[in-house]
Order: sequence, then C-alpha cells, then structure tokens
Amino acid sequence: MVNYAKFLSTFEELSKIGWDENTGMNRLSLSENDIKVRKELVKRLQKINAKIVTDDAGNIIAKVGEKEQAIAIGSHLDSVPHGGRFDGAYGVIAGLVLIEDMKDIMKNHSLILIDFTNEEGSRWTPSLMGSGLTTGVFSKEFAYLQKDRDGITFKEALEKSGFLGDERNRLLYNPPKYYIELHIEQGPVLEREGFQIGIPTGIVSLRVLEVTMKGESNQAGPTPISYRKDALIGLSKIAYRFRDYALKKEDKLRITIGIVNVKPNVYNAIPGEVKFTVDIRSYDDNVLENATNYVINEIKSVSDEENLDVSIETKWTARKVEFDKDVIGIIENSCKKLNLKYKLMWSWAGHDAQYMTRISRVGMIFVPSVNGRSHTKEEYTKDEDLINGLRVLEETVKALDER
Amino acid sequence: MVNYAKFLSTFEELSKIGWDENTGMNRLSLSENDIKVRKELVKRLQKINAKIVTDDAGNIIAKVGEKEQAIAIGSHLDSVPHGGRFDGAYGVIAGLVLIEDMKDIMKNHSLILIDFTNEEGSRWTPSLMGSGLTTGVFSKEFAYLQKDRDGITFKEALEKSGFLGDERNRLLYNPPKYYIELHIEQGPVLEREGFQIGIPTGIVSLRVLEVTMKGESNQAGPTPISYRKDALIGLSKIAYRFRDYALKKEDKLRITIGIVNVKPNVYNAIPGEVKFTVDIRSYDDNVLENATNYVINEIKSVSDEENLDVSIETKWTARKVEFDKDVIGIIENSCKKLNLKYKLMWSWAGHDAQYMTRISRVGMIFVPSVNGRSHTKEEYTKDEDLINGLRVLEETVKALDER
Repeated sequence: MVNYAKFLSTFEELSKIGWDENTGMNRLSLSENDIKVRKELVKRLQKINAKIVTDDAGNIIAKVGEKEQAIAIGSHLDSVPHGGRFDGAYGVIAGLVLIEDMKDIMKNHSLILIDFTNEEGSRWTPSLMGSGLTTGVFSKEFAYLQKDRDGITFKEALEKSGFLGDERNRLLYNPPKYYIELHIEQGPVLEREGFQIGIPTGIVSLRVLEVTMKGESNQAGPTPISYRKDALIGLSKIAYRFRDYALKKEDKLRITIGIVNVKPNVYNAIPGEVKFTVDIRSYDDNVLENATNYVINEIKSVSDEENLDVSIETKWTARKVEFDKDVIGIIENSCKKLNLKYKLMWSWAGHDAQYMTRISRVGMIFVPSVNGRSHTKEEYTKDEDLINGLRVLEETVKALDER
Repeated sequence: MVNYAKFLSTFEELSKIGWDENTGMNRLSLSENDIKVRKELVKRLQKINAKIVTDDAGNIIAKVGEKEQAIAIGSHLDSVPHGGRFDGAYGVIAGLVLIEDMKDIMKNHSLILIDFTNEEGSRWTPSLMGSGLTTGVFSKEFAYLQKDRDGITFKEALEKSGFLGDERNRLLYNPPKYYIELHIEQGPVLEREGFQIGIPTGIVSLRVLEVTMKGESNQAGPTPISYRKDALIGLSKIAYRFRDYALKKEDKLRITIGIVNVKPNVYNAIPGEVKFTVDIRSYDDNVLENATNYVINEIKSVSDEENLDVSIETKWTARKVEFDKDVIGIIENSCKKLNLKYKLMWSWAGHDAQYMTRISRVGMIFVPSVNGRSHTKEEYTKDEDLINGLRVLEETVKALDER
C-alpha cells in the first residue's frame, strides 16, 4: 500500500537540505536549513489537503481525515551540529509518505503527522522542548527564555521562523489516541545481535551529575609530587572504576563521563580544577539509585584521599517511562506477520515519545544503525532496514485502525 | 651598601604597572604594560648614565663601568597572563637597585643589568626566547615568525615596541664573565623545610610529550559499556599511575599531565578523543629516560587494553644544565657570611640562566615562595626574604669582583 521507493526518493531529496559532505547534517532547530526543510514538509502536506497547524512551540501538526480519534506519527527534523541524516528525519519522512499513501484507506481514525521543534536541545536546552511544551511538561516562560549561543531566545527564533502558532493547538488539548515514533536505534545492539527491528518497551531513567574537584594549581616543575593537590588525579582514579562498575551490570546500567574541563590547562601547571559530568542511566530504579550512591561515594572518598574540595550537583534527571503494552503487542504482531526478526529492548536515549506518553498510547519502532554510529555524518541505516521499519509502521497503523 | 628600603619601595612602585587586584599581574611580553615598565626601567638606568643597548631580541642590556670584564645580573619583567608580581621582576629590580648603589665601588668589573624579552613564552612560544636568541640557541628566522594569539609575529611586536636593536649587541658577542639571577623559588620546598635561601646547582632535564588517544564517540545512552571505545578511560587508567610512579622517586622525578582536551565534550557522548600532555622532569638522565619509557609503555599498553589508537609526540625537550661550581661556592660563602640558612637544590623550572651558561659562568639565588604559589596573583614572598636574597646577591657580586 505504501510506496517504499517513493519513500526512499523523498528521504534522499529532503536529506539534501542542510547536508554537507564534510560536516554532515546541519539542521539546528529553527535555523535557516531547519526552516527550509519544514517548509518543504508543509508544501507536501498541503498537496494532500492536510489540516496543518502549529502550536506555541512551533510544532507542526498536520491532520488528514475527519475521524475524531487519531493515530499520530511523529519525530523531529532538527539535527545536532554536524549530525547525521537519519536521527529524527527518518520518522517524519516515513510518516509523511505513509500518510500520503494510507489516508484514503483509514477506516476508524484520522492520521496526524508531527514534526517536533528542538528535539535535540542543541540550540536551546533542554532537549525534547517541543514535545515537552505541547504536552505541558515545561512552562512556556521557562522554554521561551532559553537562549542559544548567540543570545537568541527560543521565543525570538519562533516568532521569526513563521512557525509560532496558538497555544490552543497544543496536543495536550487535542490528544491523539495513539502516537507511534519510528527512529534509528543510535546504538550497535540490533546490528551486532542480528535483529531487523527493535521494539522499545520504554525509555530508561537518567541522572546527570556535574562534579567540580578543586585542588591547587602550581607550577609543574618546582612542586614536588607529595606537595600537590592535583584535581586530575581525582578524576583519573574514578573514571575507569565507574566504567568497570557499569560493565558488571552491563544490561542494566550505563555510566558515562562525557564533559571534562581542566583548569588552567597549561602543560607545565598542575590541574587546580577539574569539572566533569557523570551521566547515569538504567531502567531499574534500584540499580540507578545504587549506582548514583556508588558514584557519589567514590567521588567523595577519592577527593578525601587526594585532598580535593568537591561539589556534586544534579544537573538533570528524567524518570523512566514505559510504553503502552497493547501498542507494543501490536508492533510485535506486525513484525511476526512480516517475518522480521525483532527484539524487545529499552531505549537508552530520550525521544519525543517520552513526553507523548502523558497524553497518548505510545509505541516506538527502532531500525539498526550501522556500527551504532549516530550524531555524526557517519550515521547510517541501510535502505532495506529503513523500508523494514516503514513496513512495520504501516502494519501497526493498519492494526490500530482496526481496533 | 645597597639600600634595601629603596629596593622595597622601587619594587612596590614598579609592581603597580600591569597589576590588577582581581586578575593579578598582566605584563605579557611587549604588551602595553610590559613596554611601560621597560621604559620606566630605562629611565632609571639613564639617570645613572648606564650605557643602554637592545639586541635583535629586544633584550635590554645596560652597562655601568668601563672595565672589560663584567658581572651581569638579569631576569625578566614579562609575566604570564594573570600572574604574580615576583616572578622575574624581583631579579631585575633587585639588580637595578644593586647597580645604582654599587656602581661606584666596583674594583675590577663593570656591572650589567639585563631584562630578557618573552621569558615566559606566554605570548610567543617557546619560553626563554630573549635569552635563547642572544646566546645563539634559536635562529632569528624561527623566533621572528612565531605568532601570538592575535596573529602578531614576534618581529612585528618588536618593531612596534621601540626595543628592536642590533644583532651585534647580542650577549653572545659581548659575553659577561659572570651571570647571576635572583629569583623566587616558585615551589614550596624552602618554606616547608625552613630555608631562607636556595642555591640551584643547575636546571633539570625536561621532556614534554603530547599524546592523542582515539576511540569512538557514540551516544552515551544507546551504546552498551562493552561496545565502547572510550578515550577518557585510557587517560583515567594512567594519570594516577604516573603520579604514583613519580612519587616513589620523589626527590628525583616529577611527572605532570597539565593539558587535557576531550572531544566532543558533550555530556551524553562517549569521549572519542582525548589529547593530553605529559611533562617529565629529572636532574638524573637515567631516571628521566626510565620514566619516559615507563610512560610511553603504559600509554601503549593501556591503549591496547582499551582498543584505542594512540599517537605520542615529543613536543619539547631540554637537556639539564649545571651552574658554575665556583660561582655556587661563592654564593654559599655569602650565605654563610650573612648567617642565612641555605639549601643546595635543583631548579625544576627553566630560567634565562639556563641559556646564559653557554656564554658565562652562571649562578642563581632562590628565595622562598609562600605556599609555593606562582603564576597567580597569590604569588608572594615576604619582604624579609626579598631582602635576604638581595643581600646574598650583594655579597656575591662583591666576592666575584675581588676575584
């Protein structure tokens, strides 16, 4: 029913907007490139007479059909700087083609396509801003005042973009019955374990700590080792231990130190300060809590050992969400019907689907990422896998429509 | 003979140039502040009818007296950004006051005062540029083309400063018989061990490595720990080991990781690349060689363990220099005569004295640094210690003049 070849050509065409061979995809939220691809999306939706609105987060919400109950398909067209072509855009463009091709065969539901604004959080923090606003997670005051690197607020950019719409158009006030998001895995598991489809059962809990260790910066030459308070030694003694701890709980836990800033960062000066983040994730709240306690205790005890002052702040927390069991079952059945090898799994990254669970019955579909690469121009998913994902989405929408 | 109170007031006065209560001393080489303090120095030297020249490195060389053989006193007036008042300036201003007060009692030697250009190497690398040029260590082509952060070459700044002089004025062609440098210790040893004066027997050997470890940056969430190539884990596993290795050879060895740059440096991305420096110093060439081999082997073996690609480059090497035994003996005798508690020690930091050993008989005098702080506005040496150093310098010059 859905024209897969048309999907591939549409995806190829729209992927050109913001793409650069050297730097990858540059479609920062509400940037010139993001606005260009959004206008292209709107143009195509107008051709099929979709009823297109935007809400006060600039989310594009396009409805086809007159039925009151709706099945929504969505994701995001924005990218991180120097990102890939698939993250987000795959789900939106697959949804677009599906709606074009299925709109006339729907029996009991309307179809909605959603492009969420600023999912990546690369231009304005936090991420998932559009879905967070439209579902009532964030206050408008909070989101609107966020500034990008050039000092431009989310509100200013929204106004200038032409996509600022009415608060009354929020999905919160017009919730679709179902929300399905098709996305690349962004990790290596499906490929390495030989699965064609991943079915996330939910999104894991997350806690991000920001740690500052302070010692004393003196000259590297004249200061004997035993007289030093070297903040880098503090980091050194814990980073590999956190990894080893997480490795023992491999299936249940991930710990990552992603940001490290050393001061004064001069070759012949002892590091007087090291600031770093610890990103801790699990789908098991006990595991997360134990890991967080372990991390904090290790940081404190190593700081004591090394005579460092330490401060630990929680920068971000997100409680896990679980997707709708019925929807998951329908996606499983779709895979079985299509004879695709699938894996039930957790999503270890955040997605707009996360906040959509507040207002709709939600499911997600993952397709494999080659070598697990993502947020880089090397991000890649084979055509065959892109089509498999779209076929599962198609079957799922058909099955949901029958309910 | 030397007026110590005048020294203190002169030091206080000249220390105001470039000083800011919040940021410390800002006298980057040939900056506005450095030029201002240099002009003040020249003005005072003109008052005592010194014969002042500059060479092609912009070093200020001021001679008083007609005797062919000369005793030179020198250091540098430039500072690191946000530095202290004492590093370098102490030696120049002490020398200035000493020459003012002793010029008429010298029997067998002229006196020379030297302010070396760009000792710190904070504006143009490498450090010790002025002393390196005037003693023939660096080629003019190499030094002149070095650029500061704004793209200004050393040559351009020299020309603009008004201090560019003739190559024929280099100390290499008019070598003083003796060169004495009075300097703060920049480390905590004298203070902690209760010494009033340090007498460096030489400057240690140095090797600086630049190491790049490359893993793979993927998203922190979706990538299981066992699938990762995390470059930060490589650094983590070695940094504390290097410290522990150096601690065992405390008196003989120092190892410091000073610069650490992590890519992409995003909280939810696995560090795909870590670049860092390893600064290794010893006065014992076997210890330095063994330590360097240890460091390189550990880096390689940890990189193997962690599946990281690694490259190790030597960024800088300096072979140790030893000061003149007779001059050291004379400084020792001066301390004894003045009843000052002194310690023979190595200088673990570079000084202009290092290159002066190529053309003169060299000695150095250290005074204690409170808490070993240096290259920061907290850098401090008590008046009493400043005067002790000047008294030792005075006695030393007198004794050398008798020879």
